[in-house]
Amino acid sequence: MCQLLGMNANTPTDAMFSFTGLATRADEHKDGFGIAFFEDRGLRLFVDQHSARHSPVAELVKGYPIRSDNIVAHIRKATQGRIALENTHPFMRELWGRYWVFAHNGDLKDFRPRLHATFRPVGETDSEHAFCWLMQEIAKAHAGMPAIEELSNTLSELLPQLHRHGTFNMLLSNGQALWAHCSTNLHYVVREHPFGAPVLADKDVMVDFAAHTGPGDRVAIVATEPLTRNEPWQAMRAGQLMTFTCGEVATRQCAEMAR
Amino acid sequence: MCQLLGMNANTPTDAMFSFTGLATRADEHKDGFGIAFFEDRGLRLFVDQHSARHSPVAELVKGYPIRSDNIVAHIRKATQGRIALENTHPFMRELWGRYWVFAHNGDLKDFRPRLHATFRPVGETDSEHAFCWLMQEIAKAHAGMPAIEELSNTLSELLPQLHRHGTFNMLLSNGQALWAHCSTNLHYVVREHPFGAPVLADKDVMVDFAAHTGPGDRVAIVATEPLTRNEPWQAMRAGQLMTFTCGEVATRQCAEMAR
Repeated sequence: MCQLLGMNANTPTDAMFSFTGLATRADEHKDGFGIAFFEDRGLRLFVDQHSARHSPVAELVKGYPIRSDNIVAHIRKATQGRIALENTHPFMRELWGRYWVFAHNGDLKDFRPRLHATFRPVGETDSEHAFCWLMQEIAKAHAGMPAIEELSNTLSELLPQLHRHGTFNMLLSNGQALWAHCSTNLHYVVREHPFGAPVLADKDVMVDFAAHTGPGDRVAIVATEPLTRNEPWQAMRAGQLMTFTCGEVATRQCAEMAR
Repeated sequence: MCQLLGMNANTPTDAMFSFTGLATRADEHKDGFGIAFFEDRGLRLFVDQHSARHSPVAELVKGYPIRSDNIVAHIRKATQGRIALENTHPFMRELWGRYWVFAHNGDLKDFRPRLHATFRPVGETDSEHAFCWLMQEIAKAHAGMPAIEELSNTLSELLPQLHRHGTFNMLLSNGQALWAHCSTNLHYVVREHPFGAPVLADKDVMVDFAAHTGPGDRVAIVATEPLTRNEPWQAMRAGQLMTFTCGEVATRQCAEMAR
């Protein structure tokens, strides 16, 4: 299995701390890693088929404070598809003039839904095939970019169709929201002012967030396993879809969404 | 105007030397840079809205020998569109299960062809709009991935339609071939064994390629201005389209293309 990390913030925030936590788990998950940073509509996507433990690309990400409002990261333990760059998550496509990124933890056994539209996998993984199907069905469901809430409704109809074919823990973002679907294992925490000083679960690293953040800052973190020891991580339920916008669980549209 | 750099090789080759040459020109072209490396079907795309002179991402590219068979790079001097990540070349889309990357030097005045298919720009540049139109028209012209020669024929019909609206120096690659279209300024050189020791035009850097390459190695480099002082760079003609495969000007399909 792989490990997922997602972040959604109301203020562009760097992920050096959380990514350092994720990368310590790369010994077991050594078949590549990737991280996508949205900066408004723009996207940086770093992928490497080498372990996040040794990759110069991972060193860059750990040391360069890229400030992003939506992040999707993945470290891979190959189950389907060779160890190759084209099989490395997250995957990216464009729809309605926005980039969409997707990362998957799990295994969809013998499930290859028909792809009749324009989204086709480049690599060989079940994950990229599922992503292409998801993009195809989202594109069919709406004439143009709908509101986040409508997209969440569409996803809540589509995701069970994937989930019934196997394990499907997933992160998806279009730069406006972060969607997390839990099949077996996904946790989240919302950090709000005052942030305190979380301690990484696997490494003696502590960051005093209070020193780096302002009073209105808020950030939601989603990860396969809790990344820190002293924060109130909550486990998602099997089959649960959560939408994060503006650094919190989306229950309403927030002002920033209107942009 | 911007600066373009493309590479097509018959053996995966690193671009540290040529990119170092390009980056020395980043003082004038400080509004971002990007470089796309194909590794077979896989793609790494590094973009940064900061100057290649100072960006940590550029430092990584200059120091990390990423071996690639097709490279498209661009350093930007903004003419249309804000300085922003989503306006930074190269742009990437997927078609027929392959990634396509595109970089443009020039200016298409008041030209916004109608986009009726699924490729839409994320940023505001004339360049990305032209790329989306090109992908739309390529997708319409063929039912699935055609031979490289057929793609070159299609491009030779499409590119004049863009060129007539302004300056359109362009690099395009799908990981199998590199296409270069010259409007005002584009040069190329083919390096073959024995490679010799080219000297960068703008910087006292010399690389002894002979020490790094084997007898069968061949690489074509395309750049806005010649990057080296002691190699037989050739200027392309206005309106000329060239196709590079396996490190040389494509006159025939080579064995590697069959993969």
